[in-house]
Amino acid sequence: MKTKLSLLAFASILSGQVFAAEDIPPADDWKPAPSNQAGKQYPQVNSEGRVKFRIVAPKAQSVGVSFRDSSPFTKDEDGAWVGYTRPLDEGFHYYTINIDGAEVPDPNSHYFYGAGRWGSAVEVPAKDADFYALKEVPHGQLREIHYFAKTSNTNRHAFVYTPPDYDKDISKRYPVLYLQHGAGEDETGWGRQGYAGLIMDNLIAEGKAKPFIIAMEFGGNPFAGGQRRTNAAPAGATNGAAGGPRGNFNFSAFEKALIDDFIPFVDANLRTIADQPHRAMAGLSMGGMQTRAITLAHLDKFSHIGVFSGGSIAVTNITDMAKFKEKVKLVFVSYGSRELGTNRVGGRGFGGDPKANAAALKEAGIKSVFYESPNTAHEWQSWRRSLHEFAPLLFKD
Amino acid sequence: MKTKLSLLAFASILSGQVFAAEDIPPADDWKPAPSNQAGKQYPQVNSEGRVKFRIVAPKAQSVGVSFRDSSPFTKDEDGAWVGYTRPLDEGFHYYTINIDGAEVPDPNSHYFYGAGRWGSAVEVPAKDADFYALKEVPHGQLREIHYFAKTSNTNRHAFVYTPPDYDKDISKRYPVLYLQHGAGEDETGWGRQGYAGLIMDNLIAEGKAKPFIIAMEFGGNPFAGGQRRTNAAPAGATNGAAGGPRGNFNFSAFEKALIDDFIPFVDANLRTIADQPHRAMAGLSMGGMQTRAITLAHLDKFSHIGVFSGGSIAVTNITDMAKFKEKVKLVFVSYGSRELGTNRVGGRGFGGDPKANAAALKEAGIKSVFYESPNTAHEWQSWRRSLHEFAPLLFKD
Repeated sequence: MKTKLSLLAFASILSGQVFAAEDIPPADDWKPAPSNQAGKQYPQVNSEGRVKFRIVAPKAQSVGVSFRDSSPFTKDEDGAWVGYTRPLDEGFHYYTINIDGAEVPDPNSHYFYGAGRWGSAVEVPAKDADFYALKEVPHGQLREIHYFAKTSNTNRHAFVYTPPDYDKDISKRYPVLYLQHGAGEDETGWGRQGYAGLIMDNLIAEGKAKPFIIAMEFGGNPFAGGQRRTNAAPAGATNGAAGGPRGNFNFSAFEKALIDDFIPFVDANLRTIADQPHRAMAGLSMGGMQTRAITLAHLDKFSHIGVFSGGSIAVTNITDMAKFKEKVKLVFVSYGSRELGTNRVGGRGFGGDPKANAAALKEAGIKSVFYESPNTAHEWQSWRRSLHEFAPLLFKD
Repeated sequence: MKTKLSLLAFASILSGQVFAAEDIPPADDWKPAPSNQAGKQYPQVNSEGRVKFRIVAPKAQSVGVSFRDSSPFTKDEDGAWVGYTRPLDEGFHYYTINIDGAEVPDPNSHYFYGAGRWGSAVEVPAKDADFYALKEVPHGQLREIHYFAKTSNTNRHAFVYTPPDYDKDISKRYPVLYLQHGAGEDETGWGRQGYAGLIMDNLIAEGKAKPFIIAMEFGGNPFAGGQRRTNAAPAGATNGAAGGPRGNFNFSAFEKALIDDFIPFVDANLRTIADQPHRAMAGLSMGGMQTRAITLAHLDKFSHIGVFSGGSIAVTNITDMAKFKEKVKLVFVSYGSRELGTNRVGGRGFGGDPKANAAALKEAGIKSVFYESPNTAHEWQSWRRSLHEFAPLLFKD
C-alpha cells in the first residue's frame, strides 16, 4: 500500500491535481457499501469513512468522482479505474462518476433522487445505524399514492407511511405527520434514503413513539423550475404546481397544494384523526423553511412543528403569542453540528441563531426542543436522527 | 440530414462498424421519451420508433449504446455525443451507454431493475399506451412490504397492489393474484415498468375487471446466484432464499417461500378471501415457468393460471384431469407475436407449441385462453398487454 500511495501522490503531482491525502496509507479494511447494488463489491468503505470506487473503463483517459479532495484514479491491469475519497462523515452522500468528461451514475450503486437528479449515492455506515436497521419487528407500509388535485388540475403523486397494525384494527384512527424533503429532492426521499418507515417501525416496536401516519408530497424544486415527473410515476404525474418559480423560495403554490388538496385527500382516504391537535408538519432544509412558513400561517391546522436544518422560529416571528401558545404543542428545531456556526445558519433568511431562538421560545413558555446531530453536516444522517428525536415527542396527549 | 447521414455512413466504414441504417434519414420528429428524468430532453423517440441519445462526454474517444445496429455516435461542438437506434418495437427496452469501454447508465433516463441490474430503459410510446396511462380515475395503492419469513429465517421484501376503495369499505374482502417477474428482474418490475397498478385502476374504472389484490414477491435470479438486496430495501432485506442456484431453473426455494411464507403473510395482513377459488397466479418468462410448476403442484391453492411468454400447459402435463377440471377455472397463455415460431418457443422445456397446447386444453373441456400480443417480442409491452387481457377473466363468479 505504501508503494501504491506514493505512486498516487506522484501521479497527482504530474497531473497538477492537489491531492490532500495524508502521508499514511488508508486503512486496509474496505467493505462493500450497504448502498451498493446486489452482488457489487464496489464502492467500498473503510474504517476511516473513506470510499473506494472501481470503475471498469478500459479505454478511458481519465476517471474521477465528485467528492472533493479524492485521490487520483489509477487504472489496473483489468482496465478498471480505482480511487478513493478523503474520510467522509458517517451517513449518506450523493455523488457522480466522471469518465472522460461525462458525468454519469456509478453502475455499481443504487440510485436515489437528490441534487436534482436520479443518481448515485453511497452510505458510510454510521455507528448509530441501528435505529434505522431492518429488524424483526412489525413493519408499517410505504404506500405509493396517485390522486387528482382539483385546485391545480393535475395528477399528483405522494407516499404515505402507515404504521404496523394499521390494517389489523380497522376501527382505530391515527394522527398524521406531513414530512417534507429538501430542495433538489422529492417525495421519494424520506421513504428511501431517509428510512422514515424503518425509523418509525423501530421506535414503535420499542414503545418510544406513538403510531402515526406520515404523508410525503412533492414540495417543488426551486432550482429546476416547475414541471417534473417522478421516477415512481413516469406515466404522467407532474406535481408541477408545487414547484416554485426557478430559484425562488416562494412556497405559495405548495402551500395551496398541501392545504387545499393533499390534507383533504389524506383525511378522506386514510383513517386519520382529522383535527389540529393530531396534525404535525416537519421538513428538512427547504422543507423546514416550508414547515415554518406554512405552520405559522395555519396555526389552526398544525399543533407540532419540526424544522430540520431549515431555520428556526424566533419569538419575533410570532404575531399572536397567546394563540401560538394555545395552539402549538411543540416546536422542534435541529441542525447537524457541522452546520452550526457557519454563515448558512443565522443568515440569509434562516431566521437567526437557532439555538438562541429555541431557548427564547422556551423562555416564553412554549415547548421548544433543540437537537444537534453530532459530527454531521447538511446531509441525511442529520435528518434521520432528527426524525428519530422528533417522532417520540409527537401526539403525547 | 442527408449530409449528416452520409457522414455517419462514412464514419462507420472508417471505424469498421456495420451500420444497418437505410439510405434515407430518420424521420425528424423526435420527442423526449416518457422514460426520461424530469427536464431531460434526451433520449428522444421518433415516429419510426428510433431512439436518439445525447451524452455529454467532451474528452471521450468513443460513445455507443447497447442496442444492436445503432448508428455510430458523433461528437458535436458542445462535446456531446449523439447517435440513434434502428426502429424499435413499441414499448419498454433496457439499455446501457458505453463511454470509452465503460458500461454505465444513461444519466438522462429513469432507472429500472432488469437484466440483473438497476440501469437505464427507454419507453417507445405505444399506440395502445392508453390502457396504462395515468387518468383521473380512482387509484389503488402500491404498498411496499417488509416481513419476516420463518421458513427461510430472512427479512423479505414485497409489493402489494390494493385496489381503489380498499380503504373505503373496510368490511370487504378481495381475491388475490400472485404476479411474478422474469429472470434478472425483481419484485419492483410489475409495479414500475409493468404498470400493473395503472392497468388495474383503468380496468376497474371501466368496469372491465373485478377489484382484486396483486401480490408481488422476488422469485429469485437464476443467473446471479442467491443473495441480493433490492433497491427499495437497501437496509438489509435479502430475499435470498428464493434465488435458485446459479443458472439453474430450480424453483423449489421460491415455491417454499411463496406457499409457506408469503401467501400466509398476505392472508394474515390484507383483507383477502383466503381460499383456492379466489387465488390466482401468473408470471412472465421465468415467472410464467414458476407459475406453471407451482400451480400444477398446488391445485388446492390456485384456481386461475396465467403464463406470459413462459411456456404453456399441455394436456399431457396434467396428471389428474378430473381434479384439474374441477379446480382450475382458467388457463391463460400469452406470447409476443415476435416470439412465436422461434426456437425459444416450443423448445428447451417451454412445453411445446403454446397455441396448440391451448387449443388442446380447450378441447379437453378446460377454460383455456391464448393471447398473442401484436408486433412485440420477449419484452414488457407483451406482458403489460397480457395482464390487461388476463385480469378481466379473473374471479368471475
